Amino acid sequence: MRYSVCMNAIGIIGGVGPMAGADAAQKIFENTNAATDQEHIDLYLTSTPRSIGDRTKFLLEGGSNPAEGLYKNALQLIGLGASTLIVPCNTAHAPPIFDPLRKKLRDSHPDITLLHMIEETAKHIAKRFPEPTTIGLLATKGTHALKTYPNALLAYPHITLIEPDRESRERVHDAIYNQRYGIKARAPVSREALTILIEEAYKLHKQGAEALILGCTELPLALTRETISLPLIDPTVVLARSAILHTEPAKLKDEVE
Amino acid sequence: MRYSVCMNAIGIIGGVGPMAGADAAQKIFENTNAATDQEHIDLYLTSTPRSIGDRTKFLLEGGSNPAEGLYKNALQLIGLGASTLIVPCNTAHAPPIFDPLRKKLRDSHPDITLLHMIEETAKHIAKRFPEPTTIGLLATKGTHALKTYPNALLAYPHITLIEPDRESRERVHDAIYNQRYGIKARAPVSREALTILIEEAYKLHKQGAEALILGCTELPLALTRETISLPLIDPTVVLARSAILHTEPAKLKDEVE
Repeated sequence: MRYSVCMNAIGIIGGVGPMAGADAAQKIFENTNAATDQEHIDLYLTSTPRSIGDRTKFLLEGGSNPAEGLYKNALQLIGLGASTLIVPCNTAHAPPIFDPLRKKLRDSHPDITLLHMIEETAKHIAKRFPEPTTIGLLATKGTHALKTYPNALLAYPHITLIEPDRESRERVHDAIYNQRYGIKARAPVSREALTILIEEAYKLHKQGAEALILGCTELPLALTRETISLPLIDPTVVLARSAILHTEPAKLKDEVE
Repeated sequence: MRYSVCMNAIGIIGGVGPMAGADAAQKIFENTNAATDQEHIDLYLTSTPRSIGDRTKFLLEGGSNPAEGLYKNALQLIGLGASTLIVPCNTAHAPPIFDPLRKKLRDSHPDITLLHMIEETAKHIAKRFPEPTTIGLLATKGTHALKTYPNALLAYPHITLIEPDRESRERVHDAIYNQRYGIKARAPVSREALTILIEEAYKLHKQGAEALILGCTELPLALTRETISLPLIDPTVVLARSAILHTEPAKLKDEVE
């Protein structure tokens, strides 16, 4: 058995939601060049949703900031040896949550890399679509309200972002959160949730969207190459690949579109 | 947000292999009764395959015992708060690896539950098939050689286990380990690996197997309800459900066969 000289590790702050954390781990493994178990990068996942709380609820109604729980998870992961941290949750990247987390972490652990899923995704989109392109966004109400994607894409003026109208945002949010048929409440994904999401995806396509950002980590569980024929941008895959690039760049697999 | 009185947590010693660790996390979430993120059980996953080493290689050729690395992972998970530990790897349950791990853990942490995937699976099979039944086993060469399943099933004489002949064991092992098309080397699963496994599954069925144990955690990535029409027993699902039962029994979903 050979050990690499530098044993960096990836830390996933999961639980937001739980399935998205496991999904991020899987996408990291899938995007790693490894023919044996031992060629994989070390990885740790925490999934303590009770200690973090609901991100959208905080953004819309206030209360205790999920940044506190996220920071505690970050410390646990750093304690285990993680050098690159990711938070596979779009809503957690809203500035009222992510900014205090980033600041606390920079102050206490300036050597640790905390990747920003939305900024990584904006960079990826700008590179993947070098010509003027219209992109659609499907997300939770919290992510729309906080303008995390429009703000991150401001740096790339050749990308035009379109978002669903108010009624459609409610429907997408419902497909994620409904306690009977929402993606968070049911695995595998229910027919009700899938139908809503496919309808809303094609509405954005009719309005000119050439590709869609799956702007909530639960959405790739429903919208895949098998269920919809529009080009999809999965920020969890973008984040997984960035995590590999920042930890052991030689192990990053070639991109498969 | 409400906290349960007792904050037990599940710890997954992953990395053996990495995808199996993420798969176990997913199966725990899928088998948890939870309509919101916050209703999920706390969970931690370590995935440090370089520090554990290949289990089959140790069983067949000797060298340093993977039990050492597994124990270090166990201590990390206990340090985070895990009270129930699982190792989603069949080969790691061979007595030369699992027995020293179990002993060390009992000595240092008698309050921690370390579930035994094979014993849990044998118990599950005996309950699911109350009449005399023949079951087939697909596994790595290490698992066959160490007789982990036949030994665990000795307690249930109404279950007859059949295993592939030597040539077929080589083929199944190759479908898992081949560095070009094996499941460990490629995601998604290659056509070559899937073809071998379907052929070997039906060979066991012809010999009388009414259901098949997917006795290596990589196998459920290839053999699913979609790819094969034989009844399958996935020890990772059995283990995931046992972990929930031992941690927060009220959260265990009803079984879906």
